[in-house]
Amino acid sequence: MITKKSAKALLRVLAGEALAPPPIWMMRQAGRYLPEYRAVRERAGGFLDLCYSPALAAEVTLQPIRRFGFDAAILFSDILVVPDALGRRVEYREGEGPQLEPLRERGAIDALRRDQVTVRLAPVFEAAQRIAAALPAEVALIGFAGSPWTVATYMVEGRGGTEFVESRRMAYFDPERFGALIDVLTDATVEFLAGQVAAGAEVVQLFDTWAGVLSEEGFRRWSIAPTAAIVRALKARHPGLPVIGFPRGAGPRLIDYVRDTGVDAVGLDSGVPMGWAAAQLGESVALQGNLDNLVLTGGGALLEREVDRILDATRGRRLVFNLGHGILPPTPPEHVARVIARVRSAVG
Amino acid sequence: MITKKSAKALLRVLAGEALAPPPIWMMRQAGRYLPEYRAVRERAGGFLDLCYSPALAAEVTLQPIRRFGFDAAILFSDILVVPDALGRRVEYREGEGPQLEPLRERGAIDALRRDQVTVRLAPVFEAAQRIAAALPAEVALIGFAGSPWTVATYMVEGRGGTEFVESRRMAYFDPERFGALIDVLTDATVEFLAGQVAAGAEVVQLFDTWAGVLSEEGFRRWSIAPTAAIVRALKARHPGLPVIGFPRGAGPRLIDYVRDTGVDAVGLDSGVPMGWAAAQLGESVALQGNLDNLVLTGGGALLEREVDRILDATRGRRLVFNLGHGILPPTPPEHVARVIARVRSAVG
Repeated sequence: MITKKSAKALLRVLAGEALAPPPIWMMRQAGRYLPEYRAVRERAGGFLDLCYSPALAAEVTLQPIRRFGFDAAILFSDILVVPDALGRRVEYREGEGPQLEPLRERGAIDALRRDQVTVRLAPVFEAAQRIAAALPAEVALIGFAGSPWTVATYMVEGRGGTEFVESRRMAYFDPERFGALIDVLTDATVEFLAGQVAAGAEVVQLFDTWAGVLSEEGFRRWSIAPTAAIVRALKARHPGLPVIGFPRGAGPRLIDYVRDTGVDAVGLDSGVPMGWAAAQLGESVALQGNLDNLVLTGGGALLEREVDRILDATRGRRLVFNLGHGILPPTPPEHVARVIARVRSAVG
Repeated sequence: MITKKSAKALLRVLAGEALAPPPIWMMRQAGRYLPEYRAVRERAGGFLDLCYSPALAAEVTLQPIRRFGFDAAILFSDILVVPDALGRRVEYREGEGPQLEPLRERGAIDALRRDQVTVRLAPVFEAAQRIAAALPAEVALIGFAGSPWTVATYMVEGRGGTEFVESRRMAYFDPERFGALIDVLTDATVEFLAGQVAAGAEVVQLFDTWAGVLSEEGFRRWSIAPTAAIVRALKARHPGLPVIGFPRGAGPRLIDYVRDTGVDAVGLDSGVPMGWAAAQLGESVALQGNLDNLVLTGGGALLEREVDRILDATRGRRLVFNLGHGILPPTPPEHVARVIARVRSAVG
């Protein structure tokens, strides 16, 4: 790991320093809980239009930085821009999850437009450029993508958050066909993330939202292996680039994930006790997480207790304070400010 | 732990013996994947009618014992008979999950008919009696219930498998109101399980299907604590009764769950590596699980490999072979038979 000095707290922690107070950002910090986001969102038209508008995507990325002074901005985008760029139909209907045309056949996998990824995603790179130019000197810019497994589940099922019967079936019983899809997604993800880094992202995070549903063998083959390949490819192109992996629901398999992927930091969902993670995951990774997003909606004494619990359990460890999952729309923005203040008032 | 000798392999393992081959049963072994189940189901009318018909519930419980020779029968019932018995409306519509009238107000919690539980659930106890009388001498009878937290999520949300925003909100921010509901459910669950034991169940399993969504503090308070209370109350009434706890999605928190609930065995979902569980969960509990139910649908070499992996990782340990979640409807029955044969051909 390269330990170059930086004024940016997030980069310092990812490079090896334990900081007190720790840097803080929150997943989905640019989102519907902010009135200024909702105003832009209404103007943008569809959700993908917002993702593909460099000016508007930059604007909503910067909103929570201006309002709260987070230590990092995360590029406003979506994990499903990759299937969209590969030529699959992706739709967002109001009040529903995303809908895609389900992908099952080998022919359709081979027909994915891998050559189009960097062309189609150019507006995202332009957004990253604008954000990087506008960010205060102490704020790091995080790029992101979905992991191949997670993106593949949306592509195969046609939607998210299901029992994943079709994607698991293909993964387990037609690994050659599924592997062809994962290979396309692995390459596309490297291109997507490398493009973000070239445009100014200083850190990237891989969201493996549905890692938890995989069997033990499946987890190694479809979550750990593609993640390791992406980390390797990115670090070859951008030596020293820090990578955060977030295998949601991985549970005890976090131990294998940390050991075998090469990530610099690991995102923890709220189901992982921080004390366990600090003791079991080794000193080679920084820990990121894991305040319960529902606790954040309610505020009060419980919120302060849960913040303190995370800080107490990670004393002396490299921590990036975050949630265990994205900010929920009914979250009062003042609760976010209160968490930041409490984290920053904590010292060693 | 009482270590009385029994001819029943499941009871021997729960009482302290490591057996090779291990006893085997499967969650939802009585279910839609069996043509003989579907035939009875059609005759029964509604799903709850089947649960409340002692003759038909006994018949479907016995079907997989006759067909496969499992080491244990699990009473055919449903975790939502408890809210039904408490006077809440519970509906099963074809092809959808269960629907309940959402329970939110303190008045409605206080109005729950705790006095009706054993009366309304008498047909379930009668089914257990019939099954116990009909089972072969070497087959153990397992009773079951949902855990208070899991049943409460259905009651508060009105349905299952959601983001659990309302139930988590009540649990975290109105713990007095939520605690009142959990207390009613804890008492009702003890009555329900004790009634099953009095009718002939020799083991009980608590299904905490949605334990994984709780925050760290929430998991202690709403999963571990009520489970510990139920285990204590049941063992006071029925000394030596073995209890299996199944906190699905608990991940590393299984360590706390095992240490603090007093369960005799712990059910593991497919996300828990058996090697990790064998090393980390101590010798005080038997391990139950955790074949991936999707792997079971597909069969073939992968199925054999995953069966062997579980057996290899638990050599010398007390194991109850099972799935990590219930049998899926598209599962070919011959795959179930193949797993049983493979487990039974494995020796020490």
